[in-house]
Amino acid sequence: MNSTSTLSSSPNSSQTANNPLGAEELRLIDGYWRACNYLCAGMLYLRHNPLLREPLKPEHIKNRLLGHWGSDPGQTFTWVHLNRLIKKYDLDLIYISGPGHGAPATLSNSYLEGVYSEVYPAMSEDITGLQKFFKQFSFPGGIGSHCTPETPGSIHEGGELGYSLSHGFGAAFDNPDLIVTVVVGDGESETGPLATSWHSNKFLNPIHDGAVLPVLHLNGYKIANPTILARISREELDSLFRGYGWTPYVVEGDDPALMHQQMASVMEQCVLEIRAIQEKARSAPAGTAPERPRWPMIILRTPKGWTCPKEVDGHKLEGSWRAHQMPILDPVTNPAHLKQVEAWLRSYKPEELFDESGKLHAEFRETAPVGQRRISGNPHANGGELRKPLELPDFRKYGVKVEKPGQIEVSSTGTLGKFLRDVIRQNMTSFRVFGPDETASNKLDAMYEASGKAWMAEMKPEDADGGFLATDGRVMEMLSEHTLEGWFEGYVLTGRHGFFSSYEAFVHIIDSMFNQHAKWLEKSKLELRWRAPISSINLLITSLVWRQDHNGFTHQDPGFLDLVTNKSPEVTRIYLPPDANCLLSVADHCLRSVDYINVIVADKAAHLQYLDMDAAVNHCTKGIGIWDFASNDAGQEPDVVMACAGDIPTSESLAAVAILRERCPEVKIRFVNVVDLFRLMPETEHPHGLSEREFDSLFTTDKPVIFNFHAYASLIHKFTYRRKNHDNFHVRGYKEKGNINTPLELAILNQIDRFDLAIDVIDRVPTLQASAAHVKEWLKDQIIESVSYAHENGIDSPEINGWKWPGEDA
Amino acid sequence: MNSTSTLSSSPNSSQTANNPLGAEELRLIDGYWRACNYLCAGMLYLRHNPLLREPLKPEHIKNRLLGHWGSDPGQTFTWVHLNRLIKKYDLDLIYISGPGHGAPATLSNSYLEGVYSEVYPAMSEDITGLQKFFKQFSFPGGIGSHCTPETPGSIHEGGELGYSLSHGFGAAFDNPDLIVTVVVGDGESETGPLATSWHSNKFLNPIHDGAVLPVLHLNGYKIANPTILARISREELDSLFRGYGWTPYVVEGDDPALMHQQMASVMEQCVLEIRAIQEKARSAPAGTAPERPRWPMIILRTPKGWTCPKEVDGHKLEGSWRAHQMPILDPVTNPAHLKQVEAWLRSYKPEELFDESGKLHAEFRETAPVGQRRISGNPHANGGELRKPLELPDFRKYGVKVEKPGQIEVSSTGTLGKFLRDVIRQNMTSFRVFGPDETASNKLDAMYEASGKAWMAEMKPEDADGGFLATDGRVMEMLSEHTLEGWFEGYVLTGRHGFFSSYEAFVHIIDSMFNQHAKWLEKSKLELRWRAPISSINLLITSLVWRQDHNGFTHQDPGFLDLVTNKSPEVTRIYLPPDANCLLSVADHCLRSVDYINVIVADKAAHLQYLDMDAAVNHCTKGIGIWDFASNDAGQEPDVVMACAGDIPTSESLAAVAILRERCPEVKIRFVNVVDLFRLMPETEHPHGLSEREFDSLFTTDKPVIFNFHAYASLIHKFTYRRKNHDNFHVRGYKEKGNINTPLELAILNQIDRFDLAIDVIDRVPTLQASAAHVKEWLKDQIIESVSYAHENGIDSPEINGWKWPGEDA
Repeated sequence: MNSTSTLSSSPNSSQTANNPLGAEELRLIDGYWRACNYLCAGMLYLRHNPLLREPLKPEHIKNRLLGHWGSDPGQTFTWVHLNRLIKKYDLDLIYISGPGHGAPATLSNSYLEGVYSEVYPAMSEDITGLQKFFKQFSFPGGIGSHCTPETPGSIHEGGELGYSLSHGFGAAFDNPDLIVTVVVGDGESETGPLATSWHSNKFLNPIHDGAVLPVLHLNGYKIANPTILARISREELDSLFRGYGWTPYVVEGDDPALMHQQMASVMEQCVLEIRAIQEKARSAPAGTAPERPRWPMIILRTPKGWTCPKEVDGHKLEGSWRAHQMPILDPVTNPAHLKQVEAWLRSYKPEELFDESGKLHAEFRETAPVGQRRISGNPHANGGELRKPLELPDFRKYGVKVEKPGQIEVSSTGTLGKFLRDVIRQNMTSFRVFGPDETASNKLDAMYEASGKAWMAEMKPEDADGGFLATDGRVMEMLSEHTLEGWFEGYVLTGRHGFFSSYEAFVHIIDSMFNQHAKWLEKSKLELRWRAPISSINLLITSLVWRQDHNGFTHQDPGFLDLVTNKSPEVTRIYLPPDANCLLSVADHCLRSVDYINVIVADKAAHLQYLDMDAAVNHCTKGIGIWDFASNDAGQEPDVVMACAGDIPTSESLAAVAILRERCPEVKIRFVNVVDLFRLMPETEHPHGLSEREFDSLFTTDKPVIFNFHAYASLIHKFTYRRKNHDNFHVRGYKEKGNINTPLELAILNQIDRFDLAIDVIDRVPTLQASAAHVKEWLKDQIIESVSYAHENGIDSPEINGWKWPGEDA
Repeated sequence: MNSTSTLSSSPNSSQTANNPLGAEELRLIDGYWRACNYLCAGMLYLRHNPLLREPLKPEHIKNRLLGHWGSDPGQTFTWVHLNRLIKKYDLDLIYISGPGHGAPATLSNSYLEGVYSEVYPAMSEDITGLQKFFKQFSFPGGIGSHCTPETPGSIHEGGELGYSLSHGFGAAFDNPDLIVTVVVGDGESETGPLATSWHSNKFLNPIHDGAVLPVLHLNGYKIANPTILARISREELDSLFRGYGWTPYVVEGDDPALMHQQMASVMEQCVLEIRAIQEKARSAPAGTAPERPRWPMIILRTPKGWTCPKEVDGHKLEGSWRAHQMPILDPVTNPAHLKQVEAWLRSYKPEELFDESGKLHAEFRETAPVGQRRISGNPHANGGELRKPLELPDFRKYGVKVEKPGQIEVSSTGTLGKFLRDVIRQNMTSFRVFGPDETASNKLDAMYEASGKAWMAEMKPEDADGGFLATDGRVMEMLSEHTLEGWFEGYVLTGRHGFFSSYEAFVHIIDSMFNQHAKWLEKSKLELRWRAPISSINLLITSLVWRQDHNGFTHQDPGFLDLVTNKSPEVTRIYLPPDANCLLSVADHCLRSVDYINVIVADKAAHLQYLDMDAAVNHCTKGIGIWDFASNDAGQEPDVVMACAGDIPTSESLAAVAILRERCPEVKIRFVNVVDLFRLMPETEHPHGLSEREFDSLFTTDKPVIFNFHAYASLIHKFTYRRKNHDNFHVRGYKEKGNINTPLELAILNQIDRFDLAIDVIDRVPTLQASAAHVKEWLKDQIIESVSYAHENGIDSPEINGWKWPGEDA
């Protein structure tokens, strides 16, 4: 039935460049491959009788058949040929499995390499362990059919398709001796993120970076459709990848013997080309800028589900979308199908491959590498093991000198840029900064003093004038948030560090990637002690909604925080530093942390500064606190709590307090600022949450709280609805109101401005409702006048910049 | 200073194929182009003195200079050459501006075509109107620098980059006579969504679809960096687009005279090729399947900021990233720069172009088309004007026969598929269905009976066996949610209808597109009466979190709803139909609606059915209601309210009620089901919100409410925190707990299961706390036993399927 699952053609006995494998090597490699494929099929079907030492019966089969066969044999084929070259050339190599649900390929190899049993001793290399190994796969309480964090050797889950290649490049950056093989599914190739990530080759330096060897696995079908790349002409396909800057080599066929020879030959050719490119670049005189090489890649065209039965019930199976998932669905209830499954499994000849104890025969085992050269045991795939903490300069020395609150204006991100510049300088091979063409726009350009922007494409003479392009740049800029986030994740998953800055509204582009990485982190951190902690993803959200008065409505969306709060409290952190010194303190903290996604919200424009460095560190350490300089409730219950989170809302709240202090001096105000947003949650729900007593002592249990928030107001309610005083919380935030406005006008439209906040206080403090009626009228006039001024002059009145307390000098 | 802003080379007087323009035509086209460019620069800088009839002074300049010049001249150049061919061949043509902030190009043309003044009469075609037109641009209270909804002729805002080409294809589908010109920025070309959207040509049928003519505007720079495509070799660039399946034609240079000739020649060549392809396909014998053509495209390589000053302060300006935004930033305060701006503006010779009144001279005006052939006045770009309601079959006839609640199991989406099949049949040129390779997996495959999947790439003999591929298919499947959503938006923006189904976890891939479309809709609907309503985006979210027990943790994310609730209540709707008949009713409603994004959450697996068709329609019309069959509080205050939203939570809540009815018959339960989620919001915040009285009458003001929710629990608190009884709301939802599980085990992990819900009731109803202690123990045992059963057998116990009320037959 299945002529291709064992060698059908007599191997060519004379080794040549095109037929590099001798008969014995071919036999052993093919045997190892058959063992892999047997394990793949075994884990899909079997819960008992793992080596078929008795005839297959329905009760040996799992009750619920879940799993995917389609890409497994092509992936195991790739892996065994990588093994050969790792041994031959002592390669340091990891493997990323792009196709969704292709985990059996990685799992089977990990098991045969012995790594799986080292990590999970219960899954021992014998028939008992094999039975458990089979049963747990895609089984309740067991493991998934993706290369989940539980999978040794994996840094990429697959399944949410499109990031395999960018993860691969992230792993290769600054790992000059590493080869990252990325098997790219032809399904995932249709996704946008994957389609643009081929251009990553314009950012990889052959001297200090490693190599990425993509293997486009063109098996022709997705879940239920052919793939685009499999249904264009060979000329178009070749042209496409040459256009992307690669040299494609095709390995195509379905006869294992011929395919082994082809793959051995082509893959060796690729490895030798990679080495030649690297040697040429690395042996050039020091200081010679390398040229962008044309790296090799492989197009592996095999039947989908290769080596499974050709047909089932008269329908084409091998080489069809029907082989995507379980090739045969009902062996438990259909005796003919049971026989077909058994014949298929036996076609790999397990009795030739495994010894009496159930372990792979040594002669096959010896075709694989040993120790850390085993792909599934390569330490780069458990990057925390290689991670070294960053060398950090003392962030305090970059601080802004603040003698009194609210006197000077500084760009917080500009200040941060200088700190990051020196972080780059002190970590020239283990820290990179990512941003989509906006590093300078986000005022982080001091970093260019330490290092340029990575660029391996063509350079022109005019680039010398402020272009900051450099073949060895540490700043990664490409107009694809997907690619940047993918690089960043790949970089930290292999033990390094980074920092990403994004326009606030456009960070939603990577919502889905954030979700997936958070899930990866949660599993790794909470359930897998063998995975060493990795550096956090540090995400600076800047060019904020409140300064998108000029870019307009499309650029106004602070909703990423809502998404973040849906993920596990164990791996998520949100910081809203109100000024530059707080931002420095927060950034230092985040860069030292592991296993989090730290989201930092800070605007790029110049804003008033409030806290000197000591006060900032103290405030950020507590995460929330009363600002005495803005409060006048000393020692007493206040009439109202003015709370705020976010730099611009803080500034407006303070301006409102200044107005009230001048015009309603009798009202007792407590001013509370929140840096660490999760402090608002109950301590039972987040490790940073305040206890009930702490919360009540800040916010009172019965006084109005006017909370000015950076993002959508509902998030504060979500965090505080269980608090005693919640009914008195009155939250202002972005209400989807805006177009082209001045900053104050945009604040007014959404009622986070000083005037509306002061009105809120008057409306909610009973003693003011009558006594301050005239102040309220004055405030309403201010609103109208501010908007009129803006529409007439195109700018806000200079008077609104800055504020002072009554009695202070200007 | 600026030799290229007017014709510098003597035009070739002899017209040839390569020089198709005679001297006079060249003069007129170039004049029109200069007028466009003058307007672009004018709107960036001027608030007074719009035609420079007096020397330029600082007070003529806007106080805050905001806007982008970089891509404007290349875009206006493209537009004026399109004008020539529209007139010559009577083309029906629209224009999509991909580059961010390129609105001046569209605005200037719209103004010169007279459309702008028709839509906004205050911006008249005279010097007074021109002054207002200039001032409003990127000015507080005015319009943005993107092609926002306010821009006549625009269906694509640009700015959030990457969807121009997919929007263009969406517009071209089923518009056989339309040519959609899409100017693609070389910056946006780096985004993933754009990079894969070039493959849209594999889905466009030359017989019944129109044509898309991409113009890749290779002006070399993004905000602060060169672009990748501008810095690869010409061979690679050509190869890339041939690989994508296009025939690229290059227009390159900076001398306007030569460029006009080149562009006129190349663009005409493209139009003639398009027409030839279409004629060939359309004149073939009926029934001949068309082959995939190799459509033409243009690569337009011009300097960035073409025709602005070559240098400023010794830095290269034209042809550099410095021309991206405002080429000269400080003319108000720097007299030399003021002179430079003035000289630049005068280089377009406005005095030659505009008459005394300030209107474009007729001789130039005549180079543009008139009426609906004007690009900015083409009705396809205000698609609501062309929209006709769908012909809908009576959805009731697809209903499931439900004699008693909870007796039969049916796939709700399977039922919907039959309805959609007939919607397709009755609307074969105005309705398409979109889904990423999952239409069959989502059980909507009945649609294939009406129409196959659109596929213009290669077909193979085996595709005949269940492949459902068809060159004229109405079902659009590509493994790129970005492309699908882009097509869908383009399709409805031009007046047609559609339906999109997505795996729940992966709809986050298009979060950012959802945000942008919601913002477009809100502005169009609330502020722009001239924009006719368009069909809603109907988004079916399926393959839900609660049935991702087998795909595992990565596939479990119901958080899209949180995102939806951040956008304007005027344009967002969320429906959670509990069964198939409710889903039919909801789908019918959504397909009739306009100007919304309707999000429908319904699982694909077989689930119990509850309501007959009349009851379903009634329930969906109210959006929320008490289910009498599951309640036993008739006429009295209940002890507890069991509320639920979502099909699977509803099923678990009902099972909990059945358990309680048997084991705690004394407890009085009211059962409330929510279909229309926004009913929970206060009526002051959402048009669907319940009044306080209505809400209290359903949920009581003091009884415990056990709310079982489909998504994250916090969303229910977000909607209800202002309600009187909110403190008694106890919400269950997804808590990020899951891996490979059985359905019941996954529910148990997140405590939305029947047993935990029953425990919740016992814990919260005071009379039960003591009396039902033994029931609680029994429930806890059930939980443990259920998980044990799952881990042993790989499936849930068959006993948990279905439930019955005490005393009922099985």
